[in-house]
Amino acid sequence: MELLQKKILEEGIALSDTVLKVDNFLNHQIDPKLMNEIGKEFAARFKGEGITKIVTLESSGIAPAVMAGLVLNVPVIFARKKKSLTLTEGLITSQVYSYTKQETNDISIAGKFLNDKDHVLIIDDFLANGQAALALADIVQKTNESVAGIGIVIEKAFQDGGKLLSEKGYRVESLARIQSLTNQTIEFVNQKTSVK
Amino acid sequence: MELLQKKILEEGIALSDTVLKVDNFLNHQIDPKLMNEIGKEFAARFKGEGITKIVTLESSGIAPAVMAGLVLNVPVIFARKKKSLTLTEGLITSQVYSYTKQETNDISIAGKFLNDKDHVLIIDDFLANGQAALALADIVQKTNESVAGIGIVIEKAFQDGGKLLSEKGYRVESLARIQSLTNQTIEFVNQKTSVK
Repeated sequence: MELLQKKILEEGIALSDTVLKVDNFLNHQIDPKLMNEIGKEFAARFKGEGITKIVTLESSGIAPAVMAGLVLNVPVIFARKKKSLTLTEGLITSQVYSYTKQETNDISIAGKFLNDKDHVLIIDDFLANGQAALALADIVQKTNESVAGIGIVIEKAFQDGGKLLSEKGYRVESLARIQSLTNQTIEFVNQKTSVK
Repeated sequence: MELLQKKILEEGIALSDTVLKVDNFLNHQIDPKLMNEIGKEFAARFKGEGITKIVTLESSGIAPAVMAGLVLNVPVIFARKKKSLTLTEGLITSQVYSYTKQETNDISIAGKFLNDKDHVLIIDDFLANGQAALALADIVQKTNESVAGIGIVIEKAFQDGGKLLSEKGYRVESLARIQSLTNQTIEFVNQKTSVK
């Protein structure tokens, strides 16, 4: 997605060989117009798949997921990292290992929002090792729903997540795929054809 | 806002005299079309105020704030409850006391996103005791920005927050104002005139 790549080049910062900081428009400050275009792009790529729900992870997944939900006209559910006081019964939980923080955390969704007739699009802001996306897919499958695919705003294609998810049979659509962040330089994977 | 009141009556649950559960469309599952209408309503109410930025709090504030930001064409910044590994320098922090959880938590925003020319609309999902809104206003004012007003999706008008914020001189616009939740019944404040 050209608009997104342009934004990443203009405002993203390669903090290290593995960390891309995009707090200017995605992770802390949010650019609503860009999110709207991202939502439209996800909707276009998964059009005709019969998506009935979108599942994402708080907090940075919410804006792109809600914009996609607006275009596809389906509800969005965000998995919580922390248990809520008023959301306790019937939680479906999975574990996410964070390589960055070196810790395992539970994420959960109230089971009542998922049923076996649903066909779910998973959306997240980043794909690196694939642990968050796998945990979201795990939750969806625990409720006998089917996963229509995984939509990612920014994939760090030099890490294993994309390969891992594809090997497990998931269709992954990443709107920007980073080839490398070495020498504080952001390079994209040559995207002549869309990733199917 | 009639559409919102209707949704609250249809899908909200009065869990106790003080707790309203709206996880069906706002706090866990999100209704993107309703969020879009909420965004338009906030934009209409604060039109002409010269808003340059919206500040909200993760996670449930993000969807309504981003929709308002889309209509007003301004960036949205969400305050974080937990410090990020890649967002460390120049944080502006304030404290929120939660009466429900009986604990005090820091919330923070990277100072670089706020400057003294900004005129900020604060948006949050709920207004109860006003502690979260006050902490957001405190952060905004620490950076010498001005607060244009506070937009709330659901105000529990039987609690002190609305009064407290008005006394401090803030313009508060609540899209739905709950009068009472007693006997598992949701009653709204009679809203013949809009709250100015």
